[in-house]
Amino acid sequence: MSEPDKSEDIPDEPAGKGIPNGGNAAKSKEDFDLASIYVSDAQYNRNIYFDTSPEAVKLYIRYNHWIPKVILFFFILVDLSLAIFEKPAVFPVPTLYTMLVELLCLLVFTLRLVHYAKVIPRDKFWKDPKNICIIVILVLTVVDLIIYESLEAANCYAVRWSRVLRPLLLVNVTEGRQLRRAFRSIRNALPQIFYVFLLFMFSLLIFSLMALKLLGKRGLKTIDGAPYFTNYLEIVFDLYVLVTTANSPDVMMPAYNASFVFAIFFILYILINTYIFMSVFLAVVYNNYKKYLKEEVRQLVRAKRHKMVRAFAVLQEQRAEGGEPVVSQANWNQIVKLVQPDISNAHRELLWSVSDDNNQGFIGKVAFVQLADLLNIEVITLKSRPHPLQRACPAFYLSAPSRLLCRLVQHRAFVILYDLIILVNAVFIGLDEENPLIANSEWVFLALYLLEILLKLYVFEPRAFFSRHSFWNWFDTVIVISALIATVVNSAMTSSQNYTSRQILDIVFILRVLRLIRVVDSIKRFRAIINTLIRIGPAILTFGQLIIVVYYIFAMVGMELFKGKVRSFEDDSSDPTKAYCGNPLLKGTTFAQLNYCKNNFNNVVSSFILLVELTVVNQWHVLSSGFAAVTHVSAKLFFILFHIMVVIVIINIFVAFVLEAFFVEYSVDKSDLQTSLEKKIEELELAVAQEKLEDNLVNAMETIDSDQGTGQSASNKPALMFKIASKRYRTVDALLQRMFEADLDPEDFAENDGDANGNFTNPAFNSV
Amino acid sequence: MSEPDKSEDIPDEPAGKGIPNGGNAAKSKEDFDLASIYVSDAQYNRNIYFDTSPEAVKLYIRYNHWIPKVILFFFILVDLSLAIFEKPAVFPVPTLYTMLVELLCLLVFTLRLVHYAKVIPRDKFWKDPKNICIIVILVLTVVDLIIYESLEAANCYAVRWSRVLRPLLLVNVTEGRQLRRAFRSIRNALPQIFYVFLLFMFSLLIFSLMALKLLGKRGLKTIDGAPYFTNYLEIVFDLYVLVTTANSPDVMMPAYNASFVFAIFFILYILINTYIFMSVFLAVVYNNYKKYLKEEVRQLVRAKRHKMVRAFAVLQEQRAEGGEPVVSQANWNQIVKLVQPDISNAHRELLWSVSDDNNQGFIGKVAFVQLADLLNIEVITLKSRPHPLQRACPAFYLSAPSRLLCRLVQHRAFVILYDLIILVNAVFIGLDEENPLIANSEWVFLALYLLEILLKLYVFEPRAFFSRHSFWNWFDTVIVISALIATVVNSAMTSSQNYTSRQILDIVFILRVLRLIRVVDSIKRFRAIINTLIRIGPAILTFGQLIIVVYYIFAMVGMELFKGKVRSFEDDSSDPTKAYCGNPLLKGTTFAQLNYCKNNFNNVVSSFILLVELTVVNQWHVLSSGFAAVTHVSAKLFFILFHIMVVIVIINIFVAFVLEAFFVEYSVDKSDLQTSLEKKIEELELAVAQEKLEDNLVNAMETIDSDQGTGQSASNKPALMFKIASKRYRTVDALLQRMFEADLDPEDFAENDGDANGNFTNPAFNSV
Repeated sequence: MSEPDKSEDIPDEPAGKGIPNGGNAAKSKEDFDLASIYVSDAQYNRNIYFDTSPEAVKLYIRYNHWIPKVILFFFILVDLSLAIFEKPAVFPVPTLYTMLVELLCLLVFTLRLVHYAKVIPRDKFWKDPKNICIIVILVLTVVDLIIYESLEAANCYAVRWSRVLRPLLLVNVTEGRQLRRAFRSIRNALPQIFYVFLLFMFSLLIFSLMALKLLGKRGLKTIDGAPYFTNYLEIVFDLYVLVTTANSPDVMMPAYNASFVFAIFFILYILINTYIFMSVFLAVVYNNYKKYLKEEVRQLVRAKRHKMVRAFAVLQEQRAEGGEPVVSQANWNQIVKLVQPDISNAHRELLWSVSDDNNQGFIGKVAFVQLADLLNIEVITLKSRPHPLQRACPAFYLSAPSRLLCRLVQHRAFVILYDLIILVNAVFIGLDEENPLIANSEWVFLALYLLEILLKLYVFEPRAFFSRHSFWNWFDTVIVISALIATVVNSAMTSSQNYTSRQILDIVFILRVLRLIRVVDSIKRFRAIINTLIRIGPAILTFGQLIIVVYYIFAMVGMELFKGKVRSFEDDSSDPTKAYCGNPLLKGTTFAQLNYCKNNFNNVVSSFILLVELTVVNQWHVLSSGFAAVTHVSAKLFFILFHIMVVIVIINIFVAFVLEAFFVEYSVDKSDLQTSLEKKIEELELAVAQEKLEDNLVNAMETIDSDQGTGQSASNKPALMFKIASKRYRTVDALLQRMFEADLDPEDFAENDGDANGNFTNPAFNSV
Repeated sequence: MSEPDKSEDIPDEPAGKGIPNGGNAAKSKEDFDLASIYVSDAQYNRNIYFDTSPEAVKLYIRYNHWIPKVILFFFILVDLSLAIFEKPAVFPVPTLYTMLVELLCLLVFTLRLVHYAKVIPRDKFWKDPKNICIIVILVLTVVDLIIYESLEAANCYAVRWSRVLRPLLLVNVTEGRQLRRAFRSIRNALPQIFYVFLLFMFSLLIFSLMALKLLGKRGLKTIDGAPYFTNYLEIVFDLYVLVTTANSPDVMMPAYNASFVFAIFFILYILINTYIFMSVFLAVVYNNYKKYLKEEVRQLVRAKRHKMVRAFAVLQEQRAEGGEPVVSQANWNQIVKLVQPDISNAHRELLWSVSDDNNQGFIGKVAFVQLADLLNIEVITLKSRPHPLQRACPAFYLSAPSRLLCRLVQHRAFVILYDLIILVNAVFIGLDEENPLIANSEWVFLALYLLEILLKLYVFEPRAFFSRHSFWNWFDTVIVISALIATVVNSAMTSSQNYTSRQILDIVFILRVLRLIRVVDSIKRFRAIINTLIRIGPAILTFGQLIIVVYYIFAMVGMELFKGKVRSFEDDSSDPTKAYCGNPLLKGTTFAQLNYCKNNFNNVVSSFILLVELTVVNQWHVLSSGFAAVTHVSAKLFFILFHIMVVIVIINIFVAFVLEAFFVEYSVDKSDLQTSLEKKIEELELAVAQEKLEDNLVNAMETIDSDQGTGQSASNKPALMFKIASKRYRTVDALLQRMFEADLDPEDFAENDGDANGNFTNPAFNSV
């Protein structure tokens, strides 16, 4: 688990491969395949040491195709979802079926691994701990299945222990790079966290000892009448819980009732342990996170450059005797088409003109190396074409009333009017919908929203209105149309069968409320904040995966430890044991009093919800004490371990990430490369006339169209426009690189890549 | 409150004052006074625009003396403490007495203000909002006292509303610079926080609306049997509380019991509002904090340089015709003696040799300007003198057994031995002390600890052992001696009168447990963490003052709103209203059930403890609902406002500060100036042979002494040694400057101060 990930390296052989050709010989299909795979690896920061034989390259291209990847993730999902159907199940299914599905999943994973083994050299394959890890998981799962089935057959008690290993597949597949990085940053922070944690524990033990001596002999009682602070281990637990603030101020009240002087003890404790130590944890985690991430990103950048140099070596030709090797535009086009087939011709030409600044028809190494970054910049191609109605019936569309309408819809007042309508709508939603007036008003609002969309479609070119990046237009239309359908279905059912479906009504309600969110988009400051949040969204998803891996492991262990110990009942159940969750051991506990019966480990869904509650921290001591009551007091260790792992470590890393991402958004504006691309766009007069940056695309388009509608000066504008989606990142890696670009040593970008086989050290990636 | 603080400026007149003297004329006493006040202002970053007439300078020197400052703070403390004796009082005292004391305080504040008015020019005085603020507070307080007294005399209801203004004095006095800066950083962050807060409120309202529509009509009941999620405003409050996690998972349970699908709603809510938005709040606060602090520190540095240039102008003389003006060593010595009389001759000579690198006997402007920073570097002077016993009886002290003893005590095993003794002691403390064996063992431990101190005193030179910076030696000795005294007193009382005083026993217990803390010092990693914490301690105290100002205001308002509404009873009281805190309105509320009666606003102490509980957040909804029950539902606004002010704003600024301070400690090692001082120390061979940095002074001294004790090679060592307490800062400003030193623009240090009356802009400090 901890050795460097040797297989994620770059093969040495092909470094000079293009050179033996002597220069200008036509490149073979294999050359292009090889070069395109280098460029694509550089673009997506893949670090796979693949075999460079033509067959292996073909296999590798297939390995990187999106279809097998989707299939793999689908089967990982299926494998993880099996927990829903396995005992203890949400939907019980005979063991045989789940086992067959699991075997199918294992088969898929094996096939994928075999494919991988064929792509990379054999010795590299066996040196990679990721692969070993997958093989071990597969073997152990099969062993577990066999043991479990035979024990079941013999009617013995059996545990499906290999289920704990399932989420590790997500970490160890080739595509789990982001997740591995997240785990690495945790592992790197652990030693530092450990020392702070020890000191924190020391402080906890000292305070507990003091509490025992000061309060233990006073005969105080808790609110339940139990003796207060008489048992050292219980005090330690109570004070640990106090650090999480979950039992404040209850744990203090008996002492405080005795004398206010004791409150000072608790305030001091909270100040030191909750405020100071918890801030120090965040500081340590954040500091380590920044430090190691910077190092990794630096290595990533170097690896990327290195791969691009390899691709260049394959494609290069000699223009003049003794001159620098170059890549011709034809070859460059070929490569870009291979790497990114969905790119438009115009976009490709734009990229070429950025690379080939002097219009020579070929580019050198320095310009070529930029390609991977250029491809990662999202350039939006806007085709400014006339409205279809204008083409179909220009006399009508360009008539005075029609143009007045266009001007009205594009006016600021139109937006404000609809914001007001939304506000009134919000009030109506809040009122009782059983009043017929209110119920009917819903139709009015629906009609108004539909009218808005139709008006906008009348004014704006439909393809531009529904372009890929017009998030809010899509949002609006989908919500309004869905609400229309749901409302119609609902009222049809109500009038015909006199029956209201609760589910459909719920959907209608949700859609109605979601409609209101649109208001946010018309306030500029809100839009800026939300755009930032959306931008760091993909990276947050990595943390989502991380959380799921940890939750899954804890859920599996928790289900084995606690399943069936706490039972939940329907609200209308008359079971006499309902008051104490079906377990007499819970009689009189806070757990039963607060009716927490549904917080149990009886199936994977309720386990996950329980773990979320534990992550939120509040009342976690009640939950852990409940489960300790039905099993053994040491069960609390499970909950404390979860708290340390998830709340102290992972949540802090999450906060550290959000902080860092926000600072980057606040401080850096654009990377150099983007600026040069933008300069080129302006130079070519292809830029969209727009307020910069903060505006999203919808506004930009409205501006163009309004120019056309009002000034008629659009005739001398090019029919094609580009715009850089300047703050979006195709990949999480690109965001990370941007985060540390300012700090990166300039020498990393210096031209020392000539010795391709030389002192280049690859990122020391470790699998987890 | 918001205008720039014009009076905190530097007078223009004296800039060229020294020059008319033509150069080498002897400086008058007034010149030295003026120069020393500039240097001292620069050293402590004071920004007061004082009059430069000799009388005003003398008054200003008196104004800066520590005695009037201590008197001022003492009376501010007295003024704030009056709340303990005023109605509602902890210790009731006739109103007349508190009023007389308050008038005395007002008199002191007025005198101090008059003193200040005499120091600075009249027009500057009246332009300073701080002074206006103090005058307004003084006048309003007198008015309030008169109104209150007359209403009391007429037996009308009267409110002492001016008490809210008292903590503002702490902010507006000249010495409240750090506090004003903290308030400024909050005010600067407010606009940004406000927009995020609005978006957060929008999200809260939308989620509440959705909750109302989804859950309101299902007829669900809370655990108390009340209808669940039927009132929009209550839902908004419940979901606001959920953001603080205080009512998780209780608020979710009724919906979760109905269907697990609703849990998704709550999980989504917590993810967005608790995790994302709260992280964004921290990011926004942290970002603003860094940005503005950097700007302020930059201005501070410029102001400091400027003042030093003024001082130089006063002291300068012309060495050669046409040469650069310089300051002679004699004048320099004179100034340093005036500014810092407690500095030793040796230390002063060291500083001079750092400034006058070429041994010329005079220094130029550049070297002189460094003086303020040099004085802020804490240099510890170690006099390595022989042990008194060695002098008194060398034959005995240097005998073989004595030297063996010294070697034993200095051995690593001695430390480990005592760590083990402490651990055993910890176990004994944990055991029941009524067992006579355990009780007597205490004497053994006491004897062992005393023996340790005596042995160390035998081995190490006593004055070095008890030097000012040997924190742990002092700590040990004080704790052990106190424990000895308390234990002796306790057992004397027990044996003579057969009576055990609970208070003395408590003290004995506390001292015993505190003794254990010593273990931390012998583990290097812990020492490093603790040293960091101690170093940022003074800055944390500023936040302590900030918290006290805010708490005091909320406590005063809270006492007027809620005093007497909730009554607390002794544990053994048999009052029938005890179960509901003496207020029938609390019957059946969670507040009464949890026995929170003592959490009330009935006096200033319980108010403060209640506010701490609200800061910790947990159960704050129970507390606010309790007070809303006894008054009006709008009372919750008081608690929500407190939450926003303290938890969202101040705690986040606190965390931001701890983060930043920790990063500085991790990354920067020493400032350039300290390094040059250290170089000089090494050059002069005065440095202490030591492991660097991490070691605290005790270790350093142990090393010296062990050299002397064992090797006898100490004879050729100088009798005087210096050591830089490299990571301690005399002032909070110095720490802050260090925090941003790396980021500061080098041009700020460029030599553009020649035009002293020119383009210099003073820090735009605003009073709060």
